[in-house]
Amino acid sequence: MNGVAPQFARLALIGFGLIGGSIARAARAQGLAAEIITTARSEKTRARVAELGVVDRVVDTNVEAVRDADLVILCIPVGACGAVAQEIAAHLKPGAIVSDVGSVKGAVVKDMAPHLPKHVHFVPAHPVAGTEHSGPDSGFAELFINRWCILTPPEGTDAGAVDRLRAFWAAMGAKVEVMTPEHHDLVLAITSHLPHLIAYTIVGTADELAQVTSSEVIKFSAGGFRDFTRIAASDPTMWRDVFLANKDAVLEMLGTFNEDLAKLTRAIRRGDGEALFDHFTRTRAIRRGIVEIGQDSAAPDFGRPHPQLQKKPD
Amino acid sequence: MNGVAPQFARLALIGFGLIGGSIARAARAQGLAAEIITTARSEKTRARVAELGVVDRVVDTNVEAVRDADLVILCIPVGACGAVAQEIAAHLKPGAIVSDVGSVKGAVVKDMAPHLPKHVHFVPAHPVAGTEHSGPDSGFAELFINRWCILTPPEGTDAGAVDRLRAFWAAMGAKVEVMTPEHHDLVLAITSHLPHLIAYTIVGTADELAQVTSSEVIKFSAGGFRDFTRIAASDPTMWRDVFLANKDAVLEMLGTFNEDLAKLTRAIRRGDGEALFDHFTRTRAIRRGIVEIGQDSAAPDFGRPHPQLQKKPD
Repeated sequence: MNGVAPQFARLALIGFGLIGGSIARAARAQGLAAEIITTARSEKTRARVAELGVVDRVVDTNVEAVRDADLVILCIPVGACGAVAQEIAAHLKPGAIVSDVGSVKGAVVKDMAPHLPKHVHFVPAHPVAGTEHSGPDSGFAELFINRWCILTPPEGTDAGAVDRLRAFWAAMGAKVEVMTPEHHDLVLAITSHLPHLIAYTIVGTADELAQVTSSEVIKFSAGGFRDFTRIAASDPTMWRDVFLANKDAVLEMLGTFNEDLAKLTRAIRRGDGEALFDHFTRTRAIRRGIVEIGQDSAAPDFGRPHPQLQKKPD
Repeated sequence: MNGVAPQFARLALIGFGLIGGSIARAARAQGLAAEIITTARSEKTRARVAELGVVDRVVDTNVEAVRDADLVILCIPVGACGAVAQEIAAHLKPGAIVSDVGSVKGAVVKDMAPHLPKHVHFVPAHPVAGTEHSGPDSGFAELFINRWCILTPPEGTDAGAVDRLRAFWAAMGAKVEVMTPEHHDLVLAITSHLPHLIAYTIVGTADELAQVTSSEVIKFSAGGFRDFTRIAASDPTMWRDVFLANKDAVLEMLGTFNEDLAKLTRAIRRGDGEALFDHFTRTRAIRRGIVEIGQDSAAPDFGRPHPQLQKKPD
């Protein structure tokens, strides 16, 4: 890369949620495409995108969106990627790059690749970035800064196409890494999918207790629980599809997690303070590593704001 | 309360970690005590507190600290409270209020109460507030603002003493609630102790995988995992003691959690997208509730900062 960001004459974004909307805003801010075309499944979303004025053109169908596009990115739940690939296949411009942003790669490659014509370059991608918000208003241009974007090009993919997509993501602030879909799915199972599953579980547990009311759970959530509610407020459709599409890797990680939880549970039951202390000391190092490489804030409590004390009246 | 914060002639803080240090700073900022005396177990901490200059006097022993104090607060791990109560009992000023800040209340009451003389008022307390940082430098005066502080006075405790402690916490910005130690321990088991246990578990799991390296876990942690590492970086001694002291309630909540996790696991294994979607939709409401009552930030991603995009060179 030579410091000059790549230009695509026409970028087509299929789907305009948190990720699609952030790509649109970042690509426009950085001048990465001469024209940005968007579509979305619901008429309401398309109307809102048109109102927002962050893309050049909003069209009604996927087929219209991809026509003459040099870069097509599917920004939709992973379960929908196969059908959309089939729908757009015959309308893709020869030489176009086709990509996605799905949190699972093995299933997406399996679902999309068979439909795509030989004359396009298929470079699956996953920006490891997000917030708990969703919908067309939730995106912002800075979302990908200092976050990793993982590319999983199938064997034999044109290296020039991979480089162009890499430069596109780098220009939006991301660091880019290439790996196989299988390894991606294992890494994300532990760094993203299992954490979401556990957060969804405990928030559900807390909501249904007989002995403690939901209102108490909400009031006293600052003891740790509130941290879990953030990712358990993520988009339900997206996450349903992730668990269905990455079943094997998630179940494997879950098996290891359950064994480890059983070990700590046994230490609590037996009153083995030494085992607990040792475990709790080891886990601090991972946090330090994450803060050191800039993947989280060093500020206490994620930098959550604290109001000022009101001086008491004398 | 009449708008004027209460005055204590002498406040003694035993222990000067995150909570003790935050009480010292907040009490001084609000003028809640004419004199603040502190001690800590380690000489290094005592020297650091003296350097910080946020209290009036640092003394070497617990017995010296409590002499003539009107309010004594133990700010130490819950496992140490019984022994310290025994040590200070004969030196407490008649009419003094003795309190603590422990995250478990049943065990603390059981450990401390038998040692305390009849001529003091024992009002156990738990401010539900904190960060992942610990040590004498980690406290700050704003920590308790808009957070709940739970008081668990034993039956027959002098109402005037409870009111004075309530006003003390309110003057530091806290909202105060009174409940039984037993109910406190159930509420905190789900809102704080189980979340910590699960976070400690998954961070340990991620650190020991054969298929994914720790360095990959750290790099790609923004997919959700990093949220868990914050509370898994909390003080190991404090948390060892919490799990030993609140064993029954934690094991009970863990039992329910495990049943719920098994249900979601079954849904994944069977490919039951509808069950997953329904669950993931319900959990959003709890997050909304927490944000609505000001127990967390409405900003996406806890308000974590995002750097600005650097405009590409043309």
